[in-house]
Amino acid sequence: MNSQKKAKALHQRKYRFLNNEFIIEGRRSIGSAIEANAEITLLFYTTNFSENNPDIMERVKNIPSEIISSKEINNISPSITSSGILAICKISKFQSYNKNKNIIFLDNISDPGNLGTILRTAVWFGIDQIAYSSGSIDPYNPKVVRSAMGAHFNISWLGELSLKEIKGYKILGADHRGRSIESINIDNQKWVLVMGSEPHGLSESSHPHLEELISIPKVGEGESLNIGVSMGILLYELTK
Amino acid sequence: MNSQKKAKALHQRKYRFLNNEFIIEGRRSIGSAIEANAEITLLFYTTNFSENNPDIMERVKNIPSEIISSKEINNISPSITSSGILAICKISKFQSYNKNKNIIFLDNISDPGNLGTILRTAVWFGIDQIAYSSGSIDPYNPKVVRSAMGAHFNISWLGELSLKEIKGYKILGADHRGRSIESINIDNQKWVLVMGSEPHGLSESSHPHLEELISIPKVGEGESLNIGVSMGILLYELTK
Repeated sequence: MNSQKKAKALHQRKYRFLNNEFIIEGRRSIGSAIEANAEITLLFYTTNFSENNPDIMERVKNIPSEIISSKEINNISPSITSSGILAICKISKFQSYNKNKNIIFLDNISDPGNLGTILRTAVWFGIDQIAYSSGSIDPYNPKVVRSAMGAHFNISWLGELSLKEIKGYKILGADHRGRSIESINIDNQKWVLVMGSEPHGLSESSHPHLEELISIPKVGEGESLNIGVSMGILLYELTK
Repeated sequence: MNSQKKAKALHQRKYRFLNNEFIIEGRRSIGSAIEANAEITLLFYTTNFSENNPDIMERVKNIPSEIISSKEINNISPSITSSGILAICKISKFQSYNKNKNIIFLDNISDPGNLGTILRTAVWFGIDQIAYSSGSIDPYNPKVVRSAMGAHFNISWLGELSLKEIKGYKILGADHRGRSIESINIDNQKWVLVMGSEPHGLSESSHPHLEELISIPKVGEGESLNIGVSMGILLYELTK
């Protein structure tokens, strides 16, 4: 398979899994990958991109690269229009998670934009261990990667888990019927924050494992908050 | 123009402005519109939808309706696949804003998904007056409406403004260089919260009008938070 065909194949989960690689795009994500010393196996860019971004080009000069046309890069890009730079990057191999650090658990999250925002928000608040249930979308899906804006490179552990495997944590579920986050006191206990999907909420199978439900006070109107917004507010309080 | 052509024309800002109407889709948004007594001028639905949603059908029985095929509703829907119900709804006429209530000001926000999340989050926190600068996306754009999930019907004032026209408010700008939201005390003063776009932030032209910059503490890593997430955290603190 030639390199461009390979990049295109990585749009599919099957090939990402087989090759243990994924695609990142754009100045910002590629910048984050380099800063984090992520293993970029191949870089594609256009002449136009390199002329307009000498700073980035300086940082990628030791990475194997191919200069391709705009038409070619748009063809291998998962976006409608490529920004002119795209890389194939190794998926990190993780050992087991660190039991002294908190965890976000994603319960059947299927929307790629939401998952990307979740990853970006989690790392902002220093929560860099992310577990997901078997029904969740692949975190290396190109749309997730795009909306995560480089967060993948600040994650210390990411993997599929079942809640019942997690021991020694206080397991919190985000649910509108829960106690207000303002009144929650978790002391120094390590916690797992379980986030359910929109609009279904926490799954049936996760309920038996939840120790406490927590919620965000509704001051005005509406059925719910966006899941990324909810998690942001919960993490803001939990990490205070 | 026949009714289906008219619905399709409302995908464009020009026709929304001319007709003073916009499109809403799906159970949830249409339910919110009915609850808020919004003026729905015409409803389209499929037989399949009506058979599976007798509860909604009961609530819309006095609204002028057309039963159309799946193919037809997909053709007039701004979504890739219609959920089977779509309505044409009047855009509310607003007088001037209420000077005793807080305001969100959107400074050149152009991403429709972000704007929808912003509206949904604002009304959750009881902030129902939304101003936007001249460069912002139309809040009645179908993608904005979809991601706002009915928030339009809980807004008491929405309009284009310039920051310099707003008097008698404390004007706060969301900016990573600002003071941490945890240490902000706004007493009982009414405020305007100005949100800039990703990744540009607050515009040059808004800076002279900002009284205070406020920020969200970064516990971990990343360049920024998503704008909807940021605003959610700021409103959570400001409305406490």
